[in-house]
Order: sequence, then structure tokens, then C-alpha cells
Amino acid sequence: MEAGDITLDGYRALSEASVIVYDRLIDSSLLDQFRDSGVKLIYAGKRPGSHTLSQDEINNLLLQYALKGEVVARLKGGDPMLYGRGEEECLYLRGRGIECTVIPGVTSASKLAAKLGLPLAGRCSGSVLSIATGVKAGGKPIGESEVRRLIEYSDTVIFYMATGIYRVILEALQASGRRDTAVLIVEDLGGRERYVYGRAGELAGSSYEPSPPALIVVGGGVEWWMKHRRDLGYSS
Amino acid sequence: MEAGDITLDGYRALSEASVIVYDRLIDSSLLDQFRDSGVKLIYAGKRPGSHTLSQDEINNLLLQYALKGEVVARLKGGDPMLYGRGEEECLYLRGRGIECTVIPGVTSASKLAAKLGLPLAGRCSGSVLSIATGVKAGGKPIGESEVRRLIEYSDTVIFYMATGIYRVILEALQASGRRDTAVLIVEDLGGRERYVYGRAGELAGSSYEPSPPALIVVGGGVEWWMKHRRDLGYSS
Repeated sequence: MEAGDITLDGYRALSEASVIVYDRLIDSSLLDQFRDSGVKLIYAGKRPGSHTLSQDEINNLLLQYALKGEVVARLKGGDPMLYGRGEEECLYLRGRGIECTVIPGVTSASKLAAKLGLPLAGRCSGSVLSIATGVKAGGKPIGESEVRRLIEYSDTVIFYMATGIYRVILEALQASGRRDTAVLIVEDLGGRERYVYGRAGELAGSSYEPSPPALIVVGGGVEWWMKHRRDLGYSS
Repeated sequence: MEAGDITLDGYRALSEASVIVYDRLIDSSLLDQFRDSGVKLIYAGKRPGSHTLSQDEINNLLLQYALKGEVVARLKGGDPMLYGRGEEECLYLRGRGIECTVIPGVTSASKLAAKLGLPLAGRCSGSVLSIATGVKAGGKPIGESEVRRLIEYSDTVIFYMATGIYRVILEALQASGRRDTAVLIVEDLGGRERYVYGRAGELAGSSYEPSPPALIVVGGGVEWWMKHRRDLGYSS
């Protein structure tokens, strides 16, 4: 996330906190605003495949600070309830008598849509948006048949944490006769940001491979965006 | 939306605007903060079935103010790229040489998830979230077979603008042997907020009918929430 993407309620919670527990993918300029205020900043350091702190350790950390009477803000890189495990932390705390409010946030799909002018759902892109991950619960990667079904019934699909299934997506599209489907890869949204797009068939024949973290968008929203990207100001 | 849900970037854009064109579903306390500043507030008044201004009229309004040299903020009730037609307004303006930035926002799904502690996607609810509308492009309501496919291939489905298809959803669930599927209806999110939930079979046998505006959530996220709702603090 970028600093300006946090909501007023989110910002207020950070201002009122005595402890902020934050994840990777947080714009440091946001945290910098609080460094001199005496707040304790703790990096929970979740990243794909190498959790600095396990979820149990994070839950316990939040609980211990709360029990000491600290006002704890738990800062996540997107929406807490979309692959953010906000529900787990909230349940753990409320189940132990700790008051806890979840503040919604801007999810990556909305951020990339805004940056590019790409519709997620509506009359330009079609009405069904699906959001999926490359890696499912338990660490299993999503399979080709699942990708194919998703693409079949949705107008637009966005895959979060998608680097590892880039070729699976292209294979699924080709195997179902959808070589012409529009595909967009966004590497490191909110960071260095690299955009790669094209038809599934073209991309399958290219040597390009996405670098993590990446989002992959497939279908109607990308189709509309590719058609209008020059008028939207993306000439490259 | 509620006033605290706007992002810092969104708030800054409102502060810097000389004209704000806003939709229905905007918390008036947000606009109240700008009333004395001399900014011109214009209600675009989109509501289901009775558009006070057509989309063409809104596009033209934005263009005319921009051509006069006004700094125009277009305020929407959720994320501009998720059923918000942000892409249409943006394309219209950029295509006519008007500079335009899209600022992402919190979509209704994230808001309701935060309010209830309900996971949208992740290891508690399953990894695939689909978002659909009751009414598709062209005003056609979504059909039972489409609802059935969506529910089959997604872990959790959220229907926006869903009042009119409440019975269609329940029929689709029953017809596909999913009487036990967890269903949650949220009326007037951010307003008076009424929550109704239960199993599809139970709801089908009840005389309850949702009042607009309503969101309907089906599947994994609701299942998890119903199981844990007491620990989450929802005892009713």
C-alpha cells in the first residue's frame, strides 16, 4: 500500500495507538509519520514462504500488548479480510475479552484498477469479478482445471500472489481455446510497478516470467483496458 | 460509505476541489466538512432504476466544469472501479484532454466484512471470492443457472444490488441441493444496517424479504462467521 491509501479511520487508529504491529508491503512514509511520537513499531514480517512471526506468534503478541494496557494497531498491506487473516486475529482477541475493531481497507485489486483506469466489474468489463490466489490454504498451488472454471464463469479474474501460477493460467487459457484472452501482469504494485499485458497466446510464446509480488488479471476488465489504453494515456 | 472510510488521498482531493460531484450513499457528515469552504456541491443522484442524471449528463457535467478551469472531485460511494463506472468517466475526460486521477476506495464487501468480522477470502473461508450483481448490464436480472454456477465455483459469493434476486439465490441453492448453505443479507450498509442470516432452506421458508439497498453473501465466509459469531460478539 501507499501512504495515501489508508482511510481516515485507519489513520486515526494509528495516531491513537501506543503500539503498531505492521506487515511487509507497508509504505515506510506512512510509518515515518509516527516514528517520533513514542509509539512502539513492531514488524510482524509476514512474507510468502518465510514468516518472520507465525500467525500464532502474531496473535499472542497482540494479546500480550493488549493485556498490558497498550492500544495496539495492527496494520496490514491491503484489506484485512481479503487474504489478510483479520478474522483470525479478531476472533483470537475478542474470544479472550479484548475489544477489537476491524477497519476496512483498499484491496490490491482496487488499487491496480485505479492506477490503470481498468474496470473490475460493471457494464464495460462484465458484471462478475472473481478474486483468487495462486496458493490456496495449506500452500497448495491452484490447478489448471480450477483456473479454467474460474475463467469460464467470471468476466474478470484477479489472481493475488500469482507469480507461481503464471504458466498454469496461460496453459488453462490455451487448453480451453482462449488464446485471445487479454491478460495483464502487475509486478510490485505500489513499489517499482511493472505492467506486462497481451493475449494469452502471445504471452505463452514469450520468455517473460513475472517477478514476485505479482497480480495477474484475466478477461473482460483487461480486454476493455487494452482497447482504450491509448485514450487512457498508456501509450506503451 | 461512512465518512471515516475515505482514504487520505480521497480526502485531500475533496479538500483541493472547487467542485464536488457526489452520488447517493455518501455520508453527509463527510460533505458537511466542506460546506463552508466555498466549494460547489452537486448531487449526481444515481440510484437504482431512477437516475437523476444520466451517465452522459454526468460525464458532460464533469467535462464542462473542468473546461472552465474548476478542480472537480467526483465522489462515489465505494470503489470507483467496482460497479462505479469510474472507467467510463475517466475515459471520457482523458479522451478529451482533461487530466484525471482515479483514487481507489473501500468497496462494500470490505466494509461489511470489517463490520462483522467476516472473512472474504483466505484460509478460514476458502480462497475464491466472487462478486456479482443482481442486475447485469442492460438491466437484466441474473438468472438461477448463473447464480448456481457462481456458487459452485466460488467459496464465497457477494451479490451487490441484490434485493431483487433474493428468491432467485435461495431457489438456486435449493435446486442444487445446497439447502444448508449459509446466507447473510445486509440491508442498508453504513445506514440503519439490518443483518439477517441463516441456512438457505430456513430462509426460503421464512416470509422475510430484504429491503433495498441490500448485499447478499453466500458460502464459506458466512459459514465461518455463523460458527464464530458469538465469540466475535454477535449474540443475536
